[in-house]
Amino acid sequence: MSNKLTFGMVGGGNKGFIGNVHRIAAQFDDLALLQAGCFTRNKEENARTAERWDLADTARLYDDYASMAEAEGRRKDGIDFVIIATPNDTHFEIAMAFMENGIHIMCDKPLALTSEQAEVLARTAKEKDLLFGVTYVYTGYAMIRQAREMIDHGEIGNIQSVLGEYPQEWLAVSLVSDRSEQAAWRMDPKRSGASGCAADIGTHVECLLSRMTGLELEAVLARFDHYPPHLPLETNVQAMLRFQGNIPGMLWTSQVAMGHETDVCIRVFGDKGAIEWNHSTPGVLKVARINQPVQHYTAGRDFLYDAARDLCRLPSGHVEGFYEAFANLYLGFCKNLIAKKAGRDPGTYRYPTVEDGVQGVRFVEACIRSNENNNIWVEV
Amino acid sequence: MSNKLTFGMVGGGNKGFIGNVHRIAAQFDDLALLQAGCFTRNKEENARTAERWDLADTARLYDDYASMAEAEGRRKDGIDFVIIATPNDTHFEIAMAFMENGIHIMCDKPLALTSEQAEVLARTAKEKDLLFGVTYVYTGYAMIRQAREMIDHGEIGNIQSVLGEYPQEWLAVSLVSDRSEQAAWRMDPKRSGASGCAADIGTHVECLLSRMTGLELEAVLARFDHYPPHLPLETNVQAMLRFQGNIPGMLWTSQVAMGHETDVCIRVFGDKGAIEWNHSTPGVLKVARINQPVQHYTAGRDFLYDAARDLCRLPSGHVEGFYEAFANLYLGFCKNLIAKKAGRDPGTYRYPTVEDGVQGVRFVEACIRSNENNNIWVEV
Amino acid sequence: MSNKLTFGMVGGGNKGFIGNVHRIAAQFDDLALLQAGCFTRNKEENARTAERWDLADTARLYDDYASMAEAEGRRKDGIDFVIIATPNDTHFEIAMAFMENGIHIMCDKPLALTSEQAEVLARTAKEKDLLFGVTYVYTGYAMIRQAREMIDHGEIGNIQSVLGEYPQEWLAVSLVSDRSEQAAWRMDPKRSGASGCAADIGTHVECLLSRMTGLELEAVLARFDHYPPHLPLETNVQAMLRFQGNIPGMLWTSQVAMGHETDVCIRVFGDKGAIEWNHSTPGVLKVARINQPVQHYTAGRDFLYDAARDLCRLPSGHVEGFYEAFANLYLGFCKNLIAKKAGRDPGTYRYPTVEDGVQGVRFVEACIRSNENNNIWVEV
Amino acid sequence: MSNKLTFGMVGGGNKGFIGNVHRIAAQFDDLALLQAGCFTRNKEENARTAERWDLADTARLYDDYASMAEAEGRRKDGIDFVIIATPNDTHFEIAMAFMENGIHIMCDKPLALTSEQAEVLARTAKEKDLLFGVTYVYTGYAMIRQAREMIDHGEIGNIQSVLGEYPQEWLAVSLVSDRSEQAAWRMDPKRSGASGCAADIGTHVECLLSRMTGLELEAVLARFDHYPPHLPLETNVQAMLRFQGNIPGMLWTSQVAMGHETDVCIRVFGDKGAIEWNHSTPGVLKVARINQPVQHYTAGRDFLYDAARDLCRLPSGHVEGFYEAFANLYLGFCKNLIAKKAGRDPGTYRYPTVEDGVQGVRFVEACIRSNENNNIWVEV
Repeated sequence: MSNKLTFGMVGGGNKGFIGNVHRIAAQFDDLALLQAGCFTRNKEENARTAERWDLADTARLYDDYASMAEAEGRRKDGIDFVIIATPNDTHFEIAMAFMENGIHIMCDKPLALTSEQAEVLARTAKEKDLLFGVTYVYTGYAMIRQAREMIDHGEIGNIQSVLGEYPQEWLAVSLVSDRSEQAAWRMDPKRSGASGCAADIGTHVECLLSRMTGLELEAVLARFDHYPPHLPLETNVQAMLRFQGNIPGMLWTSQVAMGHETDVCIRVFGDKGAIEWNHSTPGVLKVARINQPVQHYTAGRDFLYDAARDLCRLPSGHVEGFYEAFANLYLGFCKNLIAKKAGRDPGTYRYPTVEDGVQGVRFVEACIRSNENNNIWVEV
Repeated sequence: MSNKLTFGMVGGGNKGFIGNVHRIAAQFDDLALLQAGCFTRNKEENARTAERWDLADTARLYDDYASMAEAEGRRKDGIDFVIIATPNDTHFEIAMAFMENGIHIMCDKPLALTSEQAEVLARTAKEKDLLFGVTYVYTGYAMIRQAREMIDHGEIGNIQSVLGEYPQEWLAVSLVSDRSEQAAWRMDPKRSGASGCAADIGTHVECLLSRMTGLELEAVLARFDHYPPHLPLETNVQAMLRFQGNIPGMLWTSQVAMGHETDVCIRVFGDKGAIEWNHSTPGVLKVARINQPVQHYTAGRDFLYDAARDLCRLPSGHVEGFYEAFANLYLGFCKNLIAKKAGRDPGTYRYPTVEDGVQGVRFVEACIRSNENNNIWVEV
Repeated sequence: MSNKLTFGMVGGGNKGFIGNVHRIAAQFDDLALLQAGCFTRNKEENARTAERWDLADTARLYDDYASMAEAEGRRKDGIDFVIIATPNDTHFEIAMAFMENGIHIMCDKPLALTSEQAEVLARTAKEKDLLFGVTYVYTGYAMIRQAREMIDHGEIGNIQSVLGEYPQEWLAVSLVSDRSEQAAWRMDPKRSGASGCAADIGTHVECLLSRMTGLELEAVLARFDHYPPHLPLETNVQAMLRFQGNIPGMLWTSQVAMGHETDVCIRVFGDKGAIEWNHSTPGVLKVARINQPVQHYTAGRDFLYDAARDLCRLPSGHVEGFYEAFANLYLGFCKNLIAKKAGRDPGTYRYPTVEDGVQGVRFVEACIRSNENNNIWVEV
Repeated sequence: MSNKLTFGMVGGGNKGFIGNVHRIAAQFDDLALLQAGCFTRNKEENARTAERWDLADTARLYDDYASMAEAEGRRKDGIDFVIIATPNDTHFEIAMAFMENGIHIMCDKPLALTSEQAEVLARTAKEKDLLFGVTYVYTGYAMIRQAREMIDHGEIGNIQSVLGEYPQEWLAVSLVSDRSEQAAWRMDPKRSGASGCAADIGTHVECLLSRMTGLELEAVLARFDHYPPHLPLETNVQAMLRFQGNIPGMLWTSQVAMGHETDVCIRVFGDKGAIEWNHSTPGVLKVARINQPVQHYTAGRDFLYDAARDLCRLPSGHVEGFYEAFANLYLGFCKNLIAKKAGRDPGTYRYPTVEDGVQGVRFVEACIRSNENNNIWVEV
């Protein structure tokens, strides 16, 4: 028996793709092993998932998350952490149950439906001294980490403005194709919360901007639009941002932007240079320095900071994509958890935490308030 | 002697590049010929410019615009139109002088320092039945016209949102290099007016969005920033836009955005598709249609609308750039002027007019008011 | 115990990255499970690898491949297939040993050092009715499969010419950095065989061209160059190709092409259209049709052929890269093996086979002969 | 009357676009003025062209080139140089006639139908001490000059290999559209000579490679193909090149490569770095340096060599295209001619000369011989 971390998963056993992404990502770097689960409330499907994913001990397949949390908390060889891959409205209660039983958490985003809930989660994790990660996947890309290092080392000088966008077309396309199921729950305020596009993908941009720059977001001014108009939640969000030090930002995100698949784009401008990252070519970072030719930094190269290179598994030019970025979240989380258990320092490994999750929920709430009040500035 | 249109120029004789661009562009398609000028107040330089530009009759080289306007207005073979290529604060008086003498106008943008002045110009042109073009150069690109045709023909359905940006780095770079002269006058409120970046390049984006879509801009919400902070005029503008029918837009423009040279980018999203144009590859139009692969329309091809193909002079793949876009403004203007003189219809040829110029000044004024009032919505 | 396929691995336990790629890829889609291995001849490292990779039964960790082949062949629950991830000079003997014991094969490329060896492998696989895959990883990309489907369906008409290139800079860069170890064995004719660049990466291009088009390669004309000159094997290969029907092709591959990381590019021209694929954006296929705008087909979309969509795991825009392409090889291989065991048809799932491997070795030998004979045409 | 150079033109008055390109380009920088012409043998069209192009003195409009050469040679104020923009088969006799009369030459490429003719032209120009330029337009781009400067200054080290391509689709597209006229004469061996694609566009690549690197081409190995097969001249050319010092090169050019409009691409690899230029973004030069991020050099920037910056007229980011590249040829030619007349040094201004034209014709002849002899190496 290896001395890896062990983990369980709640959710992920349905038809969606994200459960399997979590599982593969969590095991990618041989630091953790799936040992328990409650993958869906459908009992047969739950068993099939356990078999498909080689759950070694069927006694650790559970019918509901509550008994799983309790049983695993009681076991001497209980799981180290649990992955929560369920719809947004259930994150809170599930995370609380596992924390009650002393189990560390990796949770899908958005973290919770309200900032009150989110703050309870953060407080609880702190009180119980538990690691609590939130899967803001795009922060896992090596070149995002490279960007942060370059900014921290002053390579682009003082930040003067930031721009982030995340346009998608999937919702518009889904409505004319046969994939309306997922569209349905994401457009159901009961499952998703009071925001659609801002919560679902706007939070990714907000998190990327904050984590890449290290700047705190102080206020937002947002406008929501719905297309088609009968939809209950917004599908297009325009926002102005104000970061600490009165640094201006802009954010655009859409689920109905034809021609855009998952086109996250982040730009940070300083007084000595600028950095741009596009999700469509995730291994490339465009770096401008004043009065110099633009440079294309690429993944896996010697000239990257160590903290970024540590997130590259392949020789340069061999594309690492979404799965590998997800794996980098777990790499950071597991390195920290292993270090914690050993009383060591985790070095440069990081992961997005429950604090980022809280900030995301606050951001969404501020957007909602701004939109409802004729687009005024609202503190985050 | 050919029966071309004849024109004169006021300004353009200094060290800047734009005077020569006007002259080459106006003569590009053999529809007009330079016959008079007052290129600079420096008498020697004025004479040198006349010689360099082959002014046939030195009697038509003038020391000041007022005597030029009067003399050319009196001549039987006086110029058909005048090009005004002087700093912003002089456009109004010069244009008025030539209109008084019955001469048609092509004027640099921004049209005037205040909307009152701009409206007087528009009213005067109308009363005197004179053509009055404003050189919003980017509207001259063939693919911008193609975009307008596609939108007019319903190819992307009902417009749902628009985005425009125009980031430059030139000001930031100029401040560390030896080219601070041009930076100086553009940053002098007496010459440029009360706005820097919004007036200088923001108006290009506003005009492109309006002319590409055919939508009227109703209101703006803007934030101005200055970097470096000692500059008297804004160098970074973030704005939300509201077009007729409550269609949302976003606009970003900057003169200190490192890594961006002249990166105009326009995106229009409809419910059936979307269109994107980037100035760095001006002969390409990215067209998305719902549930289809993205298409790259290119200049000079058979599949373009006639109105766009008429603006392409070269076989496809042979890049036409800034000079040729400028020439397309004059092509449209001259075709209209020739048609007007002959009492004919100019067909599909268009050019940005004094009405676009008025709208531009109003847009800038609205941005200023919004910025001064904590970023509220201001009607344009 | 799940009813998945089981596999073992020979090699892959050293410092290189490729062993772990194989393991992750083979298990990616939950069709197979690692159950045996001989990962390296270093006993301690072998044990560490087994633990890291969660080998359930340490009795199935072997000191040498021969005893592994024999033991697994004898076990009732012996492995279904073996992955051979060792240096080129050992592929032949290892593959033969496992085939002797009735075990299916997945082998790294190039398949063998000589075409005689390669043909013996192919003949043996046929005689013993065993599946034998060769990991030409780039053929695993969904868009390569899409290209093949489009060509098969006549979408670009009759093929008129093809171009393939695979430039890298890694060798040149390695020589000035601290990563000269891998460079060393690849430049050792005893381990690599009589060819460097042509065998190592040229074969990838040859295989892509053949599999994308379905055309047989008949002859080559090649020129080899060495930089730096002291290297024993060629680092730059230029070749002309002649496919069946006298269709011309060109091929370029290099290990010292600065600015290129892993820039595989394949272009196929027909009389109705053309297709282009670039490894740097593996989810995009550029498709030209005569007198139409160029289209960008993208992974995961509804408009792909089913055979290509079946290789996409994520919603469009979420990049799948090298690991996932590798996983697609195993997906095809396992689907075929499962179907074979069940006596079913595997549908559209394919994988590169020992026949492709034989062709690759013949291609390399023909290149060598052409280069040694002043670049004459040599039959493959 | 200005003291500019004066020039005449033979040809260019037909429906093609290239005559007007010559005229605009030659006058672009105010160094020369059109004063004489024989634009077409159609007398009415000849007169119309003269009027359109503002020929000041109708006495200098000629019915045939021979009388033009003689008359202009005799005039005290006769033209300084003549532009020859006629079909390939007439270049020789026209150029000879003007040189006989002491007039400098700018001639379209390919220079002549045979290398014998071409060499006579070169010898004559030398004997008579006349400037003789050949309009290899792509060499006029500023970034091509930048590349040459970088190479000359050793920025990429010793050259190890070069690649050039020039794929077009126009012929394939023309055959299905209504533009078969131009296709017709280019496919007529009597007008075009014994080669189609190699002479028409292959020579552009050969010239670019030679001029960018400063290397002499020593031998070629070429394969010609015709699609559709009934065409009398080749439409697709594949070639290997051998430059001085045994440096290898590859060249591909095609007139039936769907998806490619005018996609000239030049790549030069050295032992310290590499350079790439693509005609679709002519203001960008990709520069790789060993173990560094790739850099994008752009037109108009401070960091360019002076010789390149002198060819940029606009602020960076404002695209200069085909007309402006053509104008750069005339800028170089005129600067040299002015300097010659004044007995001064022209500085860094260059232009492609009759020697380049001779080399181009020899290259084509070598390709033809290689293709006819089963693709052997042929000395150039």
